[in-house]
Amino acid sequence: MSDLVELGNAVGTAQKVGNLVGVFAFGVSGALLAVRRNFDVVGIAVLAVCTATGGGILRDLIIGETPPTAFVHVSYAATALLAAALIFFWHPPHRVTRTPLLMADGVGLGIFCVTGTVSAFQHGLPATSAAALGVVTAVGGGVVRDVLAGITPSVLSDGELYAVPALLGSAATAVLLHHGQYTYWTGGLAGAGAVVLRFLALWRHWRAPLARPHRRRDPA
Amino acid sequence: MSDLVELGNAVGTAQKVGNLVGVFAFGVSGALLAVRRNFDVVGIAVLAVCTATGGGILRDLIIGETPPTAFVHVSYAATALLAAALIFFWHPPHRVTRTPLLMADGVGLGIFCVTGTVSAFQHGLPATSAAALGVVTAVGGGVVRDVLAGITPSVLSDGELYAVPALLGSAATAVLLHHGQYTYWTGGLAGAGAVVLRFLALWRHWRAPLARPHRRRDPA
Amino acid sequence: MSDLVELGNAVGTAQKVGNLVGVFAFGVSGALLAVRRNFDVVGIAVLAVCTATGGGILRDLIIGETPPTAFVHVSYAATALLAAALIFFWHPPHRVTRTPLLMADGVGLGIFCVTGTVSAFQHGLPATSAAALGVVTAVGGGVVRDVLAGITPSVLSDGELYAVPALLGSAATAVLLHHGQYTYWTGGLAGAGAVVLRFLALWRHWRAPLARPHRRRDPA
Repeated sequence: MSDLVELGNAVGTAQKVGNLVGVFAFGVSGALLAVRRNFDVVGIAVLAVCTATGGGILRDLIIGETPPTAFVHVSYAATALLAAALIFFWHPPHRVTRTPLLMADGVGLGIFCVTGTVSAFQHGLPATSAAALGVVTAVGGGVVRDVLAGITPSVLSDGELYAVPALLGSAATAVLLHHGQYTYWTGGLAGAGAVVLRFLALWRHWRAPLARPHRRRDPA
Repeated sequence: MSDLVELGNAVGTAQKVGNLVGVFAFGVSGALLAVRRNFDVVGIAVLAVCTATGGGILRDLIIGETPPTAFVHVSYAATALLAAALIFFWHPPHRVTRTPLLMADGVGLGIFCVTGTVSAFQHGLPATSAAALGVVTAVGGGVVRDVLAGITPSVLSDGELYAVPALLGSAATAVLLHHGQYTYWTGGLAGAGAVVLRFLALWRHWRAPLARPHRRRDPA
Repeated sequence: MSDLVELGNAVGTAQKVGNLVGVFAFGVSGALLAVRRNFDVVGIAVLAVCTATGGGILRDLIIGETPPTAFVHVSYAATALLAAALIFFWHPPHRVTRTPLLMADGVGLGIFCVTGTVSAFQHGLPATSAAALGVVTAVGGGVVRDVLAGITPSVLSDGELYAVPALLGSAATAVLLHHGQYTYWTGGLAGAGAVVLRFLALWRHWRAPLARPHRRRDPA
């Protein structure tokens, strides 16, 4: 029994560490985009922080948890600023950063979709809405990043399977919560499933389908 | 008397049906824009939902009604996703969809400007602010749609009379509420007035004026 | 003693006047950008109001002060609409408006970073977060303006020292609050310091550094 408790605590710690890994990865992705868009040092710092905390802030505003967690615990912004500082001084070429960044981002995606769903459910939202907010938590930061950087949000347009793993992880978490079966273990499994699915999608180049294209484009 | 009550209930039902008609129309407009921008299936679904629920979510966040109605009642998102699925599989040419879409969108505009104003007033906002939030409810979804799709919000720039009918409908509703004269009937009249004005503007090509143009453009 | 109280009241009045000066300046900057982007009269009004009130609304949503101050006190929106009307009928060339606009905007920046920090601190946020929200208050309106107008937010990308003075003013205010030394006087000093720093940056062309550029651009 006490072995299980210890293991449970270890999983809780793993979740906190994973959370910061995700924040760091999202921060790096924001800072890298800012550098590519020729933003100044302020833009790099702001884009790193907004990417890393944007999803969670959106979720907290929607469930009425004010001030949002990211404004109460300084560790989030500090981790994102660390990522920004690293990228400001050392922004290695795309071919070096691509794989580790995708992996860290995938881990963040898996963790955020679970923790986001749990937060929302604990605030009394129905399971369906909680799952939707898990997706908002996981992909919202990237949307904020892209809107601030003036590009079309990649999650909406680039055809990669990015929101779908988050949706499945969130849905699994919501089902667990709804049936009272959510524990660190089952929640961890849901998150790991999302991460594995994301990695499989990257590895096997799975694509989200596009609608059959128009023959003639209408003016937007 | 009981005839009037029955009629009142019928109006209430009409309002609910109209609400979903508006949500559906806004969902279609989001999905169509996503298809035109070559978004993938995730982008189409997200843009449909955000367009249909964005205005109401913004209003609810501002008046402190958390979680927003659109996260509590699944019917909103489900209706918008239905619109997205329809457009994903069948996106007919612009000349076929244009008129029914404009009509449904106009009905949604008229209903949302009234219901948005009422929500805000019931939360204790002064009548002027309630009217402003009615406009936010009616046009906010379209602004969210255009920002996410990476185009300039059409309500700000295309010169069509779109926000003005919403403003007049909201203002009329706020005046009714302020003087204690708001009923299903008078509110329905305010909304119908906004719809009629919107249709007249489309039919007669009424335009919102632009400022006298600069002779020489300053760099933005 | 009563002289000091009178002087304190005078400072309080100066703050209110300064607040409206800032709102007016931000409103003008929004309206001018809308005119340059060829927006119609609705776009000019909306952009003026969103620029003038956007930072404060963001702050209020984050600290859970709903409805936001800008929706309770009509004077904010009215001042911004006055700015919009002025620019709609009379939008003088850039060379005439540039200097007074920069000065008014700088005064607004200094006042908003202080008042934003104070609001957040009074809502129980830790001093660090309160300072962050001071910056959000001061620069948020400009970010909303640029996103709605479809341009890259100037505070992130143009290399001007704009957020840095706001950050220093907010940080100074947060330190004062944390140590119980905040008064109209010391707060006024913090704000004046931000304004002076902003003016110095404009006058001496101080720039925020960019990251060392990539040799080869990666696709965004």
